[in-house]
Amino acid sequence: MKISKYYLPVLKDAPLGAEVVSHKLMLRAGMVKQQSSGIYSWLPLGARVLKKVENIIREEMNKSGALEVILPCIQSADLWRESNRYDSYGKEMLRIKDRHENDLLFSPTAEEAITDIVRSHINSYKDFPRTFYQINWKFRDEIRPRFGVMRGREFLMKDAYSFDVDQESAVATYNKMVKTYFNIFMRMGLRAIPVRADTGPIGGDLSHEFHVLAHTGESDIFYDKDLEEELNKLNPDVEKIRKFYAMADEMHVVEKCPVAVANIKNHKGIEVGHVFYYGTKYSEVLNATYMNHEGKTVLFHGGCYGIGVSRLIAAIIESSHDDKGIIWPKAVAPFTVAILNLHTKDADASSLADKLYQALLDRNIEVIYDDTDAGAGNKFSRVELIGIPYSIVSSTKLAKENKFEVRDRKTGAVELLDFESTLKKLLEDD
Amino acid sequence: MKISKYYLPVLKDAPLGAEVVSHKLMLRAGMVKQQSSGIYSWLPLGARVLKKVENIIREEMNKSGALEVILPCIQSADLWRESNRYDSYGKEMLRIKDRHENDLLFSPTAEEAITDIVRSHINSYKDFPRTFYQINWKFRDEIRPRFGVMRGREFLMKDAYSFDVDQESAVATYNKMVKTYFNIFMRMGLRAIPVRADTGPIGGDLSHEFHVLAHTGESDIFYDKDLEEELNKLNPDVEKIRKFYAMADEMHVVEKCPVAVANIKNHKGIEVGHVFYYGTKYSEVLNATYMNHEGKTVLFHGGCYGIGVSRLIAAIIESSHDDKGIIWPKAVAPFTVAILNLHTKDADASSLADKLYQALLDRNIEVIYDDTDAGAGNKFSRVELIGIPYSIVSSTKLAKENKFEVRDRKTGAVELLDFESTLKKLLEDD
Repeated sequence: MKISKYYLPVLKDAPLGAEVVSHKLMLRAGMVKQQSSGIYSWLPLGARVLKKVENIIREEMNKSGALEVILPCIQSADLWRESNRYDSYGKEMLRIKDRHENDLLFSPTAEEAITDIVRSHINSYKDFPRTFYQINWKFRDEIRPRFGVMRGREFLMKDAYSFDVDQESAVATYNKMVKTYFNIFMRMGLRAIPVRADTGPIGGDLSHEFHVLAHTGESDIFYDKDLEEELNKLNPDVEKIRKFYAMADEMHVVEKCPVAVANIKNHKGIEVGHVFYYGTKYSEVLNATYMNHEGKTVLFHGGCYGIGVSRLIAAIIESSHDDKGIIWPKAVAPFTVAILNLHTKDADASSLADKLYQALLDRNIEVIYDDTDAGAGNKFSRVELIGIPYSIVSSTKLAKENKFEVRDRKTGAVELLDFESTLKKLLEDD
Repeated sequence: MKISKYYLPVLKDAPLGAEVVSHKLMLRAGMVKQQSSGIYSWLPLGARVLKKVENIIREEMNKSGALEVILPCIQSADLWRESNRYDSYGKEMLRIKDRHENDLLFSPTAEEAITDIVRSHINSYKDFPRTFYQINWKFRDEIRPRFGVMRGREFLMKDAYSFDVDQESAVATYNKMVKTYFNIFMRMGLRAIPVRADTGPIGGDLSHEFHVLAHTGESDIFYDKDLEEELNKLNPDVEKIRKFYAMADEMHVVEKCPVAVANIKNHKGIEVGHVFYYGTKYSEVLNATYMNHEGKTVLFHGGCYGIGVSRLIAAIIESSHDDKGIIWPKAVAPFTVAILNLHTKDADASSLADKLYQALLDRNIEVIYDDTDAGAGNKFSRVELIGIPYSIVSSTKLAKENKFEVRDRKTGAVELLDFESTLKKLLEDD
């Protein structure tokens, strides 16, 4: 993509009102633009990152055997009345009347919609377990939307729902989903800690929040430092991990903590996911049953598994930036490589840059090419702000030596390499 | 994907109320389930087709140079008041009040939202032309939703918006988009005819609807039969095509038609796309300007380009089915190949089927494997109903000869092939 054909409305200063660093940087990098309170448009750069994150999640969910569906944004209130949530949900649910005065709502979550699908066929125990997921827009009418897409009203969510024949099978599904979450966050270059979450009236210990560690996080998390060691393993044991102490904020009570204070690590975190085994809560109220091997009609055991996709992007930025801008982990970077031609009127510098651009396109490496007549300083600061992992600089002086300057956004390392070595380095690192 | 792990709730008979063939078949094939009037959930098979169609559209839009964005579903009424459409849009617009009694709406289209983005930066003529597109859910509160996803209320739409510095440049953009539409429909195995559409108060001839030919279509289209010849060319000339006579229903008046009746072809069609050059209509009312080469502030020329993505799937089915079910064009088929193991208890038949399944997975060929203990008749009718291009049958008898039966869903051709020849055929055709 040539910047001369792209739309990258970067800003020198963050607009007033942006408090947290991810919000400031997303606005400055031209990733999003506010449409209304807590509602954002995703501009080309932001949309690219969102699709990348979405695709990593989709790939890992598919690998786990979960089946992708799409549940409607606008749902009839009837089903939510059946589950008794229409009245109890509170003002976060956006309630709507259609032209015929029917009650509708914008889906804040979808337990009802998916349970309705599963219950509407006569199912045998042989047809389960099944996990369904979707990646779709949700709406929660937050009373005070803030921090940009971190706490917006319209947000992209991956929500999954499992149907198992009994608790034992449901726990196995739960563990599989926790493992899938490890894979998802690891691929994005994130360390995410699963902390025990409140299970409310349902009870039990099968509810975890996933927190990305970031100094600017809004929650305080406390965990056994030996947990990190287990999480670092290639194939972590979920049952083992669940036994470690890990709590957020109000769930952590020093007096009741079974781990010695010296062994507790405390870090700021941002909640990006939540997994929850809710047993027969929804199958009971919606009468979702299957036929067991004795021919008896039995209730499903269910769980739900969310990831805040748009919020995750803010969390990545919170955990990976410096005073110049965003530092994208490679897997979610909007482009892997930026080519900066500092002297567009110099034939040699331009021809070298053009040649590299074409070579990268031919090899399906995602590249953005600054072919504009902006000044060198502007080009450098723009590409640092938008956080592209590698910048390859072409200039009159460099072209004389047949070299590029290769800059690593994360380490700050600068190398002088010829065409072939540059290409080789970028191909190896892709 | 093994059917024993999939969710494919096929129905023997179409539910009451489904009138058109695509609606019946989508329900019978377990692609969608109605959530509420005109609102559908997409089950795993349907979601796969939707993603395929979406990706073809995305690839071709990207190739055209259009930039992907995501505009919010829920938008503030303020911007729509500025363009004077909030009051004039009619009851199809779903109007909503949030918890603070602010007026919101579910986006039925997005000229306002994208124009607001473009106008909010000071832009030079050098930064244009630009075309933005999104693939996102829209809502139109149809008074009588019907025909399943053909005329639903919540629907997936690709909507694109172009910004050009003058009419000449806008016409070039328009022609490029028409060409992109040809590519999109061609890749899906569809013949789509661009017919002249009403431009209303804006005037001119730069508005076309794209109709997919189908005997069950709801509109009547009339066109110069020489148009087909031009459309069949590899690289059709859009300016030339625009000169041919092609009109739908009420736009066609026999007495005024400049082409001899004998040269007019009449066919039923389903509208799946619309392209429209609207000039300065929105830039005027929303004050969207750029700086021209003389430093003067000038209004943008705009166009909009829609494709009804969910509707397109119904149109594909209308144009490609038989009395047994759907016949998917390969590019949009949920799976390219189905393996039917008729005798799952036979070790040889199973091992051959397993081996083929693995070989196809290894080669990234999308395959669904009927490994269930359903009867042969059920297996055949299910795979014919869901329209998979190739069915590969394994059975006790066939395994004795080390053969598969290879069935072509479209032609009905049946061949007996050994393992290598089967694989070769499927790889060649992919």
